[in-house]
Amino acid sequence: MALLYGSSYQIPGTSPGALIAPADQPAGEAVLTLTRFDSGTVEEAPHVTPEDCRTWLAEAADAAALLPALLPAAEGTAGKHSNRPIFWLHVTGTPDADLARRLQDSLGLHPLALEDVMNGGQRPKAELYDEHLFVVLTHADYSGLDLRLFQTSLFLKGNLVISIDAGDDGLFQPVRQRLVQGGRLRQLGPDYLLYALIDMVVDHKFPLLERMGAEIEDLETDLLEDPPADANKRLLKLKRNLLLLRRQQWPEREVLNLLLRGDKEMGIGKKTLPYLRDSYDHTVQLMDLLETYREVVTELQNALMLAASNRLNDIIRVLAVISVIFMPLTFIAGVYGMNFDPQAGWLNMPELGWAYGYPAVMIFMLGLTVGMLWFFRKRGWL
Amino acid sequence: MALLYGSSYQIPGTSPGALIAPADQPAGEAVLTLTRFDSGTVEEAPHVTPEDCRTWLAEAADAAALLPALLPAAEGTAGKHSNRPIFWLHVTGTPDADLARRLQDSLGLHPLALEDVMNGGQRPKAELYDEHLFVVLTHADYSGLDLRLFQTSLFLKGNLVISIDAGDDGLFQPVRQRLVQGGRLRQLGPDYLLYALIDMVVDHKFPLLERMGAEIEDLETDLLEDPPADANKRLLKLKRNLLLLRRQQWPEREVLNLLLRGDKEMGIGKKTLPYLRDSYDHTVQLMDLLETYREVVTELQNALMLAASNRLNDIIRVLAVISVIFMPLTFIAGVYGMNFDPQAGWLNMPELGWAYGYPAVMIFMLGLTVGMLWFFRKRGWL
Amino acid sequence: MALLYGSSYQIPGTSPGALIAPADQPAGEAVLTLTRFDSGTVEEAPHVTPEDCRTWLAEAADAAALLPALLPAAEGTAGKHSNRPIFWLHVTGTPDADLARRLQDSLGLHPLALEDVMNGGQRPKAELYDEHLFVVLTHADYSGLDLRLFQTSLFLKGNLVISIDAGDDGLFQPVRQRLVQGGRLRQLGPDYLLYALIDMVVDHKFPLLERMGAEIEDLETDLLEDPPADANKRLLKLKRNLLLLRRQQWPEREVLNLLLRGDKEMGIGKKTLPYLRDSYDHTVQLMDLLETYREVVTELQNALMLAASNRLNDIIRVLAVISVIFMPLTFIAGVYGMNFDPQAGWLNMPELGWAYGYPAVMIFMLGLTVGMLWFFRKRGWL
Amino acid sequence: MALLYGSSYQIPGTSPGALIAPADQPAGEAVLTLTRFDSGTVEEAPHVTPEDCRTWLAEAADAAALLPALLPAAEGTAGKHSNRPIFWLHVTGTPDADLARRLQDSLGLHPLALEDVMNGGQRPKAELYDEHLFVVLTHADYSGLDLRLFQTSLFLKGNLVISIDAGDDGLFQPVRQRLVQGGRLRQLGPDYLLYALIDMVVDHKFPLLERMGAEIEDLETDLLEDPPADANKRLLKLKRNLLLLRRQQWPEREVLNLLLRGDKEMGIGKKTLPYLRDSYDHTVQLMDLLETYREVVTELQNALMLAASNRLNDIIRVLAVISVIFMPLTFIAGVYGMNFDPQAGWLNMPELGWAYGYPAVMIFMLGLTVGMLWFFRKRGWL
Amino acid sequence: MALLYGSSYQIPGTSPGALIAPADQPAGEAVLTLTRFDSGTVEEAPHVTPEDCRTWLAEAADAAALLPALLPAAEGTAGKHSNRPIFWLHVTGTPDADLARRLQDSLGLHPLALEDVMNGGQRPKAELYDEHLFVVLTHADYSGLDLRLFQTSLFLKGNLVISIDAGDDGLFQPVRQRLVQGGRLRQLGPDYLLYALIDMVVDHKFPLLERMGAEIEDLETDLLEDPPADANKRLLKLKRNLLLLRRQQWPEREVLNLLLRGDKEMGIGKKTLPYLRDSYDHTVQLMDLLETYREVVTELQNALMLAASNRLNDIIRVLAVISVIFMPLTFIAGVYGMNFDPQAGWLNMPELGWAYGYPAVMIFMLGLTVGMLWFFRKRGWL
Repeated sequence: MALLYGSSYQIPGTSPGALIAPADQPAGEAVLTLTRFDSGTVEEAPHVTPEDCRTWLAEAADAAALLPALLPAAEGTAGKHSNRPIFWLHVTGTPDADLARRLQDSLGLHPLALEDVMNGGQRPKAELYDEHLFVVLTHADYSGLDLRLFQTSLFLKGNLVISIDAGDDGLFQPVRQRLVQGGRLRQLGPDYLLYALIDMVVDHKFPLLERMGAEIEDLETDLLEDPPADANKRLLKLKRNLLLLRRQQWPEREVLNLLLRGDKEMGIGKKTLPYLRDSYDHTVQLMDLLETYREVVTELQNALMLAASNRLNDIIRVLAVISVIFMPLTFIAGVYGMNFDPQAGWLNMPELGWAYGYPAVMIFMLGLTVGMLWFFRKRGWL
Repeated sequence: MALLYGSSYQIPGTSPGALIAPADQPAGEAVLTLTRFDSGTVEEAPHVTPEDCRTWLAEAADAAALLPALLPAAEGTAGKHSNRPIFWLHVTGTPDADLARRLQDSLGLHPLALEDVMNGGQRPKAELYDEHLFVVLTHADYSGLDLRLFQTSLFLKGNLVISIDAGDDGLFQPVRQRLVQGGRLRQLGPDYLLYALIDMVVDHKFPLLERMGAEIEDLETDLLEDPPADANKRLLKLKRNLLLLRRQQWPEREVLNLLLRGDKEMGIGKKTLPYLRDSYDHTVQLMDLLETYREVVTELQNALMLAASNRLNDIIRVLAVISVIFMPLTFIAGVYGMNFDPQAGWLNMPELGWAYGYPAVMIFMLGLTVGMLWFFRKRGWL
Repeated sequence: MALLYGSSYQIPGTSPGALIAPADQPAGEAVLTLTRFDSGTVEEAPHVTPEDCRTWLAEAADAAALLPALLPAAEGTAGKHSNRPIFWLHVTGTPDADLARRLQDSLGLHPLALEDVMNGGQRPKAELYDEHLFVVLTHADYSGLDLRLFQTSLFLKGNLVISIDAGDDGLFQPVRQRLVQGGRLRQLGPDYLLYALIDMVVDHKFPLLERMGAEIEDLETDLLEDPPADANKRLLKLKRNLLLLRRQQWPEREVLNLLLRGDKEMGIGKKTLPYLRDSYDHTVQLMDLLETYREVVTELQNALMLAASNRLNDIIRVLAVISVIFMPLTFIAGVYGMNFDPQAGWLNMPELGWAYGYPAVMIFMLGLTVGMLWFFRKRGWL
Repeated sequence: MALLYGSSYQIPGTSPGALIAPADQPAGEAVLTLTRFDSGTVEEAPHVTPEDCRTWLAEAADAAALLPALLPAAEGTAGKHSNRPIFWLHVTGTPDADLARRLQDSLGLHPLALEDVMNGGQRPKAELYDEHLFVVLTHADYSGLDLRLFQTSLFLKGNLVISIDAGDDGLFQPVRQRLVQGGRLRQLGPDYLLYALIDMVVDHKFPLLERMGAEIEDLETDLLEDPPADANKRLLKLKRNLLLLRRQQWPEREVLNLLLRGDKEMGIGKKTLPYLRDSYDHTVQLMDLLETYREVVTELQNALMLAASNRLNDIIRVLAVISVIFMPLTFIAGVYGMNFDPQAGWLNMPELGWAYGYPAVMIFMLGLTVGMLWFFRKRGWL
Repeated sequence: MALLYGSSYQIPGTSPGALIAPADQPAGEAVLTLTRFDSGTVEEAPHVTPEDCRTWLAEAADAAALLPALLPAAEGTAGKHSNRPIFWLHVTGTPDADLARRLQDSLGLHPLALEDVMNGGQRPKAELYDEHLFVVLTHADYSGLDLRLFQTSLFLKGNLVISIDAGDDGLFQPVRQRLVQGGRLRQLGPDYLLYALIDMVVDHKFPLLERMGAEIEDLETDLLEDPPADANKRLLKLKRNLLLLRRQQWPEREVLNLLLRGDKEMGIGKKTLPYLRDSYDHTVQLMDLLETYREVVTELQNALMLAASNRLNDIIRVLAVISVIFMPLTFIAGVYGMNFDPQAGWLNMPELGWAYGYPAVMIFMLGLTVGMLWFFRKRGWL
């Protein structure tokens, strides 16, 4: 799968929402972990199936018989968290066609949304289906010079939050820990959990950009002193990575804007909004950083170009000085190496027979050299 | 017909809607295929004439005497598909003036729309005439380095969908197959068929862009290691093709936006809208890709420029080192090749007669060379 | 008059609307032609004066005594064309101060509008004065490498359409012919005549742009194979011409937009609007083409730059290879051309006296050359 | 005072509106001229003081006892000019702190506005204070390569118009002449005088831009034939001047837009609006010109770069041809200048003893040269 | 802490508002100074603690028992300053976690705002919390080539204004002095103090930009005459600094825009608004300057590139002239240095035995040189 292209796609002309896995899908298996918590308790069930989830959810719904039924989109729950248990289903890896179909059947996820999950590489977006809220974000990994982008899909459906992360680096581990430790995350509703996950995806780019910033500054220092041989390559990679990140960052900002403006239907309570606004600020700050970096890298490319051209000038100047000095000298030496016969006529190289011929020529050459050097100094070539 | 210009035009000053074929129209013959289907049956009639179509449509209208007459734009049918047969007339190739006139007479298509069909190379657009909806899209073929663009024109008029494709590569074949296999395409109305055709045109660019993406990444790898001789040419072609595609992509997005916002008059039912929204998302994603590609190709051009300049520096450095070393040496050898007569005076090249003159000169030359090399190493030229 | 600046201007500080000819106005005489037509007849009077026009118009107004008087702006006539005669006054060339004043007096044109006509080089614009509608467009002539721009001014005042064209190439000839031939142009009102003239000005740029497109593609082909010596010059001229055209095209689009949105007051009837919409589409298409051309020409400039740099690399590579091979060889030959006396000591060039000295040196030189070539091949210089 | 920075400023942290002269203010003295006119008479008083003005104004107010009092902002006067005298106070030069304070006291000008007048170099702006309308514009002087910008400040307060021009070139002289000659300027109210002054400031840039346009075209012609040595410098200066002008032109357009949209409060009557609209058109046209110039100059810079690189290629090609031809020849001559002893062995340079050795070598050299030339011609180096 | 990145951040995934100091916080201690003033008196208490402040505030509230209580946000006070004392708490340096928590407890500042204060490097922003108004601005220090940015945080809460400045250069000293001297600052309410502080932060950039402008103009002069060796470096640094400043300036303008449009809730009275509008004008002027500088620096970079290329052309031209003249001469001298035996045949270098051989060759060489020079002059190489 090409890095630039970045996504898979259904063969054009296939029926929409058909849940067929794209041809080049990676083979890794998806692992499901279900966490059930309320303000008092946290339970975690690793390696569950979609059908298990359905059972758990149904039990919880039965237990809270007075609560509105889960599946037909429990409105009114946003913010009014009456200690009803909240479920978080986390999927590591990209679901295959079979798992997608089972998720659709057991949990009522929309086939078009699941298609986006399977294809990966979507633009960040937030869509409100009849059944649930669907958010796509991108999560980046930048170790070494290569940037890898993974799609993170989030669902909010009543008391259930589903996160599907194509990456393999435990992005949501800190959220899980905070959940175990208790605190606000346990007190507030599923929308706050959704916020916490979104915030994690947004904020994890700060250390990444800090590393890039340091890299750029290192390059700047090097460039102005002694441009390293691979400067061109490194700048190109940096620029491309910044472009790829920006492609994600613009719509990511839009997602948060949408969630902020989103009316009640989205299921996000008033208490969560200020936190989302904070995340929105962060996405703006990230855009800012990306733009500045991009401009600075462009400046570095220009400076590298100029440095290369200065260096070339230096080399050619030395070459020119040496050539211009030695060419006339060599020519003179060549003249007196000619074999014209002095005996054939008194005009044939009489200098060769003069008593001071050799020193005179040497002194003339010296004078010529000194004159040349004076000329170069005047021109500023030395 | 110039690739950049991309379209034919009426001679300026001719009366609008006169249906005169442009001078440089390709000679190929247009072939009409009529498909008639309802939820139960599919019938296909190859090589029909516009007059045949008229007959079929009239028969269908008679059969469904209770249904609103076809020609005066059957409103209210959108979405309320009561198993009335739907007709799909597909035209392969560009109609000539005669065919255009017969299409106008038999099926009531608007002459200005038909003029756009005949001239080709229009910007993608959606226009609502009194008689019908008219959509122009572009379909691209990218085999080899050259991009070919074909105009695809779509009409939606009551129960009749007309598609006119100037290309020759069976773009709509998958839709035909899905139609034969049954499914949603047969259940829903003519607006869904229109969507399916539009979706096909939009989505067929994904594989094309994936190929371009792979090409760009190949070039990137090559560039940073050993720029191929034709890198400049390939980048230029890529850039130009991206520009041409983008020229189509912007208005294509607008077309889908317009259809989405289009009120009832356009004849697009509520059930079809979510699918169109999906297509709209795809056009946005395509724009995104095109923009990123364009920026990456620009970066590659900069990198190529820098690589060329680095390479030049390399060559000139070697040239300079060799010249600067050998010029003084050659000069010294030249001096001792002069023919001054040692007998004419004791100052005339006494070195030639010294017992160790030759080794002394050779050792001096060696020392000079070593000194030079030390100087170059210090300057970082080696 | 400078091409870039493109217009004349009143001396700053003169009273507005004073109808003083700008200093550098070309001396050519303006010629007036009046055409009178209704659905049945066409009459043409060449070489009329403004006063003649006034007489004709008055007669027509008298004849149709029931019709609203001409001069105080006949409202309500738009679209309701009751076979009242329509007048078209065409002026070839730029009016001088005298003619301008007579036009003002006889036909009631606004002095500020006439000032714009006389100065030429205005931005395309549409202005509604109390007395009449005033439209300024630009008409381009592109034969040879130089682009010439002429101002075309149009007035719509009741039943009278006035066109003033500073160019000399019979731009409106096709409209005149269609008028003689009859057809829609004779059936519809003065607003349709205005449209026909505008359409002519807009569409005459298509052949021009097609020629430019062909020129660009020729240059592209040449550039990638063997850049012609004047490529730089031709690209510069093209770019400048595109810039000049674009400066006209943006406001031209605005003019058509304004006429489309213009309410009744402008005197443009409902029947003419769809045709104007078509012209608007054409102006958008022209903008699109201009933008794409501009970007492609920029790409060609970059490619030319790269090609020049590649060519330089080629030349320097050959130079370097030859220098690096022959400098050491020449040095060796120089050494054995030194005149040290072998008899002065056994270390003085004993090689010269060896039996195989010469062949040994020649073989050594050959080896050196082969080694160099191997080095260059490894470095990819050959 | 730096040209780029272009303005003075109060030391940060000083109290706003304190009317302290900036440190680097030029020492020139400001001269006040008061003109009093109505439709019948014009009176001019040179070298007045602010206190004189106050007296004159008070007298006029007394004389027209029925008219609304002057100082508390005479509303309702706009457009209804009942032959009340109008006053125009023109100040040449920048007022110092003392004069500013006296202007404030005698004529009731706002201290913040006066601060802007004293500091100079403001962005063009129009501000409505309670007391009066305050307009800042910029007036440019472009003789030689250097652009000088002067601030022009205008006040409209009842029947009084104040103009303060930091320049020294009699910018408003033509307005004064028209005023003396009578005409519309004398008939209409103070708002029309304000318009006439604004129009003067706007239009005086046309000759300036025409000169720049001619300069650019001259450079273009030169560049393509034989780039002058100072082309780089001239282009840089031009570009910088265009940037400086554009920095003024954008807000100037905004000023006119604001005055056009300004409601009654601004004191600009309906009769003056069409004239202001004309000025607005001119500012747009100026922006257009500036943008086009800027783009053309950028193109010229690119062309200059390419021309320089072509020239370099030319020189290096000649150098390479000569080097590549003579290096092998010189080497061959060097070989036969070696002193190997033919008597030491039959392999030692037997060629030297051959009867046709010399002509053979010469012919070989000739052949080599011909071969080289053929090679260069094939490569297109000649 | 990287300059480009510019801020610290909480470890992603930590709970929002937790007030944990970022890892790399500088160790300096924060110093608090409390100033208490009304129209009559000014009292200053250096080195206070947050708890001291609380006591003072409480006392003042008790004293003015009739006034609305301080902590629950005293609305209605804006502008109606009835000689209630105003408090200004200034903090120099960045608070650590402990101080932040004490500020939260004693003065009721919002934890999210305090988090922003601690992390530093925020984008300028204005946020209205329930408890108070929170404004973040940036303050720049530009001595030497390096730009240092400090965050300035401002709080407005009833009668209390808090300013926290991470810088160490006494930015607010002039405000303190004006406060001691009395005047408007003492008469108006806390919102005017806030304005004075904001104005200080905005205006302190004028001298900075003036210095940059002078630097740019110096560079321009140098560049066009004799580009200094470090021109590339200086331009790069300038450009980067301009980019960093612009990153701050855009949102700073937004902050002032927001405060201007801010309704009553923000606590900014009507009397202060015109002053804020003045500050807003200054931010716009600063943006303008930054943009112009950036464009001028870009132009200088282009000019430097061209100058470098011209210089290279110069050097290579000299090199080429010398090489092209001496190479043929040296070759000829080499030919007559060959050792062909004239006795072996009459064709073997008979020139050597001619009586005028040597002078003939010298004259030929001279002629060749003259011819070359003529050729170069014609080509314009001399």
